[in-house]
Amino acid sequence: MGRYNPDSAEIIRRVALKPVSIGLLGLGTVGGGTVKVLKRNAFEITRRAGREIQIVAAAARNLKHPRQCDTTGMRLTMNPFEIVADPEVDIVVELIGGLAPAKELVLKALDAGKHVVTANKMLIALHGNEIFAKAQERGLMVAFEAAVAGGIPIIKAVREGLAGNTVEWLAGIINGTCNFILSEMREKGRDFAEALAEAQALGYAEADPSFDVEGIDAAHKLTILASTAFGIPLQFDKVYVEGIRGITALDVSYAEALGYRIKLLGIARRTGEGIELRVHPTLIPARRLIANVEGVMNAVLVKGDAVGPTLYYGAGAGAEPTASAVVADIIDVVRTLTSDPENRVPHLAFQPGAISDIPVLPMEAVETAYYLRLSAEDKPGVLADVARILADHRISIEAVIQKEPRHGETQLPVILLTHRVRERELNQALRRIEALPTVGGPVKRIRLEPLG
Amino acid sequence: MGRYNPDSAEIIRRVALKPVSIGLLGLGTVGGGTVKVLKRNAFEITRRAGREIQIVAAAARNLKHPRQCDTTGMRLTMNPFEIVADPEVDIVVELIGGLAPAKELVLKALDAGKHVVTANKMLIALHGNEIFAKAQERGLMVAFEAAVAGGIPIIKAVREGLAGNTVEWLAGIINGTCNFILSEMREKGRDFAEALAEAQALGYAEADPSFDVEGIDAAHKLTILASTAFGIPLQFDKVYVEGIRGITALDVSYAEALGYRIKLLGIARRTGEGIELRVHPTLIPARRLIANVEGVMNAVLVKGDAVGPTLYYGAGAGAEPTASAVVADIIDVVRTLTSDPENRVPHLAFQPGAISDIPVLPMEAVETAYYLRLSAEDKPGVLADVARILADHRISIEAVIQKEPRHGETQLPVILLTHRVRERELNQALRRIEALPTVGGPVKRIRLEPLG
Repeated sequence: MGRYNPDSAEIIRRVALKPVSIGLLGLGTVGGGTVKVLKRNAFEITRRAGREIQIVAAAARNLKHPRQCDTTGMRLTMNPFEIVADPEVDIVVELIGGLAPAKELVLKALDAGKHVVTANKMLIALHGNEIFAKAQERGLMVAFEAAVAGGIPIIKAVREGLAGNTVEWLAGIINGTCNFILSEMREKGRDFAEALAEAQALGYAEADPSFDVEGIDAAHKLTILASTAFGIPLQFDKVYVEGIRGITALDVSYAEALGYRIKLLGIARRTGEGIELRVHPTLIPARRLIANVEGVMNAVLVKGDAVGPTLYYGAGAGAEPTASAVVADIIDVVRTLTSDPENRVPHLAFQPGAISDIPVLPMEAVETAYYLRLSAEDKPGVLADVARILADHRISIEAVIQKEPRHGETQLPVILLTHRVRERELNQALRRIEALPTVGGPVKRIRLEPLG
Repeated sequence: MGRYNPDSAEIIRRVALKPVSIGLLGLGTVGGGTVKVLKRNAFEITRRAGREIQIVAAAARNLKHPRQCDTTGMRLTMNPFEIVADPEVDIVVELIGGLAPAKELVLKALDAGKHVVTANKMLIALHGNEIFAKAQERGLMVAFEAAVAGGIPIIKAVREGLAGNTVEWLAGIINGTCNFILSEMREKGRDFAEALAEAQALGYAEADPSFDVEGIDAAHKLTILASTAFGIPLQFDKVYVEGIRGITALDVSYAEALGYRIKLLGIARRTGEGIELRVHPTLIPARRLIANVEGVMNAVLVKGDAVGPTLYYGAGAGAEPTASAVVADIIDVVRTLTSDPENRVPHLAFQPGAISDIPVLPMEAVETAYYLRLSAEDKPGVLADVARILADHRISIEAVIQKEPRHGETQLPVILLTHRVRERELNQALRRIEALPTVGGPVKRIRLEPLG
């Protein structure tokens, strides 16, 4: 960049008066990415922040492990507690993940008067209320953009960009592993197990993939998004969570035939009675932009009452996309170092004294549409029986696919799309349908959202 | 919202100690929308900002004009200069548009020590450098999120959310009128004039649509985006601008047959030699998310070196979407009222002392791919002549469509897609092709970007 006049060194000298010192906890994938991005983009970052940002110390599990990143100029230690107590450190960046010792480290960093940047969604979703209360008390910042949807600046968008809106609902593809698996299933006709094996081979899924495929990771992120959107406390335990293990190639192809795609969505919605918080596989119209988000990419659709629908798309994981969010947070915190705590953007977007206790609804109180697949005997009157039960529960049918029996088959798949109904009503109807002598086994149910 | 405990009044009392006073210039579409959103969402906004935000005075062109919004509690005047001088006003919100008297009003507001929020893209693109210099001198903020892409928080995303990145390029659908016209042409096979008439009938295009369809409005927005992405001065006069009047239904359908869609894009790209700034119709692969942004919606694709591609989508115009951005800016400014000017986010994302004079490249130095449509005589050897000229200029051909002549036709349309080439080379080749005796008339050329 030395071609420009004034040159880089002169610009740095001119704008960067007070360097800021970072203590980094964790030199794994995201930690290494953060080191790389801070070094490679030092010039652009300093031009923006007006400060040089230096990592003065870093903690790693194993100092002999070969590093992907250049750690020149950093004191390296295997004891992260040294770093949170280091008087030279202005901002602690926690990239260890998990609850222990991350939670203790973050609390100790706050006790030591340091601002914190973290990418730890589990920590924020589970212990954020406690962490933010302590930070608030001490007049410190805890920034966590990287905890949700990797490099997409979605926390900032919801917390600041849409601050003039009453958020009506949001729906996000916030787990790249599940989105990759569902994309593979649709594009290649694969079943879940095959697509999961492919994700594991490519490093998109862990050896034990439960955390991702069972929806827990998405639920952590949804918990955080919902608090910043609605001004409610973090309530991970109130999120309804259903993963994608039960989705079959058959469901994916029926959904497609009906004009829908199946995505694992995290959905938060404000209703007259409370807040819905739910993670589950969802049929969404194939023509929606978010239905076309494929592979490991993430996207979040946010509906504000003034702005209407807005969508944010990008890489939801990976070393440098996550580092992009970590560094943006560091720059934000650098700007608040000297600001009046009262005028800062609140941790969860809403003032701590203004958090609302609007209830989170149980799943039975949620209203949504449904895709139902059942196996019925090839006899006249079966569909009429099913339709009558649905009608008894005031559930209207939007579409039906009934397959012709192939040679020798006596059980036929029947696919129904319903209009919106309360889950409690649907459950009652399904119990009756499953009790019909002509219906074999349980009814497969996938929720459907128009997102329009 | 009184159902929650503590109730709204108690929350407001608890968090909202110091009301902030707004002076509003303009009570037209966006001004009216801003009044509505501030009133309707007063509770949510106060919960976020920690302050009540009150419009104490508003200027309108005609006080007898019936209002869509409730102006209770505001002093109304036909003289906007009263408002910028009013000692009671903390923040001036300029929603008049155009250059006169908006520029004078904004400068006078700054002289009077007031922060400014504006939705005026023309004013910022043409006079932003001067306005920001004065604001900087006086330690004041000028916020302009609403000037680009309406309700999409794209300025915030580029300026803060992606602050850790070196931005490589960005490409945006940032004029809803043009996007509506191009969507209509593709979906209904209409020609430009018909689609424009439809846009006018629906209120999406002005009676004199030049500003939109000739790309000027998009160029204003691109100017602003490029400065916040690259840290360069606002340079509207260096933007290459080409509108959509020349796009025919034929081009739209050939593009579609080749797997592309035609969109009016604003493109800013960093190359080894400088910055490209250009607005023109562009073929983009139909499978890209941004290619599926239809109607009056806007979207901006930003490629950062760390984060990779990110996309931001939403309503680019309209009363309440624009008001959403205006109110977000007001809240941001409220937070800076007591902050140290040195630590604020700089107006154009980069520190004023660190703006770079990296050159903006002339269009002839830009490298891109091309869609070419020419009319050739139905004689052997014509395509060979064209291909030889392209080869002479080292222009590779990616695809060719040559139509069979219909009865009585002697001229055939030939469509070529080229690989990337510098525009200067292409211009030279086109002059030679147009001079061929077998080629009739000028060659139609539309640029093509893979955006991948």
